[in-house]
Amino acid sequence: MPKEPKTLDELFYDTLKDIYFAEKKILVALPKMAKAAQNADLKAAFEKHAGETEGQIDRLEQVFEMIDQPAKGKTCPAIVGLIEEGQEIMEEYKGSPALDAGLLSGAQAVEHYEMSRYGTLRTWAEELGLNQAAQLLQATLNEEEKTDKALTQLAEAVVNQEAEAA
Amino acid sequence: MPKEPKTLDELFYDTLKDIYFAEKKILVALPKMAKAAQNADLKAAFEKHAGETEGQIDRLEQVFEMIDQPAKGKTCPAIVGLIEEGQEIMEEYKGSPALDAGLLSGAQAVEHYEMSRYGTLRTWAEELGLNQAAQLLQATLNEEEKTDKALTQLAEAVVNQEAEAA
Repeated sequence: MPKEPKTLDELFYDTLKDIYFAEKKILVALPKMAKAAQNADLKAAFEKHAGETEGQIDRLEQVFEMIDQPAKGKTCPAIVGLIEEGQEIMEEYKGSPALDAGLLSGAQAVEHYEMSRYGTLRTWAEELGLNQAAQLLQATLNEEEKTDKALTQLAEAVVNQEAEAA
Repeated sequence: MPKEPKTLDELFYDTLKDIYFAEKKILVALPKMAKAAQNADLKAAFEKHAGETEGQIDRLEQVFEMIDQPAKGKTCPAIVGLIEEGQEIMEEYKGSPALDAGLLSGAQAVEHYEMSRYGTLRTWAEELGLNQAAQLLQATLNEEEKTDKALTQLAEAVVNQEAEAA
């Protein structure tokens, strides 16, 4: 049976499910990263972002409601891979001076994935005339960009500190 | 036997292998994405970026030389996942009006991953006193940012065009 051609509203819904799945995985990963981090500021940054992630999941659930679709996740191989990389760092660099730098780089890769997804979803929401949804997605995008900048500053501090300790 | 603590130069080398593996996967994926794309400008953008990717691989090989290490890849689960998502889009949206929008979102997710990696590697290269390597990594970062901006512009045009055709 030939498949129906899929349109932008289906792509929007599919991608919403993808990032919903991703955010839930991130919510589980962040406390583990906070526990693993050696630097107190980095621990605090991961904990803070876990709180933000809960708010971002809540916004996604509001967007699902706006398009009258059930809030559900769809396996997102990208986030599975990104989190796997973070776990590898935690195992391979456990007790090593470069652990925090590695954790930070993994977290920034995740942030970049999210920024890309939310930017795309915001653009599609605008195109589909979902203006309220576009505003919610933009709010999360702003939060992710802010987190990424904070992690960049922290990365420079952490790497300098480790170099001095070495 | 306890493992030796790993330092920033090892993290730098590990991450270099990760992005080297990723770039080679991207080099294989881009012609497939160009073939699948419906919009002529999008096809051209993917083909152009395949050419740039060859140059980026060449720069990475120069960086491997600068740190006296063999140029080799290390499986990067993140890029495996990102490319898998792109393949899902190609299959699920084949012949559908939203295919190009989906391909673009996948390509931008890959660009964001690369931007994150090159930003991290550039910062570490500076910290390690590898100034020439830092310059090469910055050159690629600039190229990726330019590509991402071009894809964003194309995404708006493609989505508008499809909406008009629908």
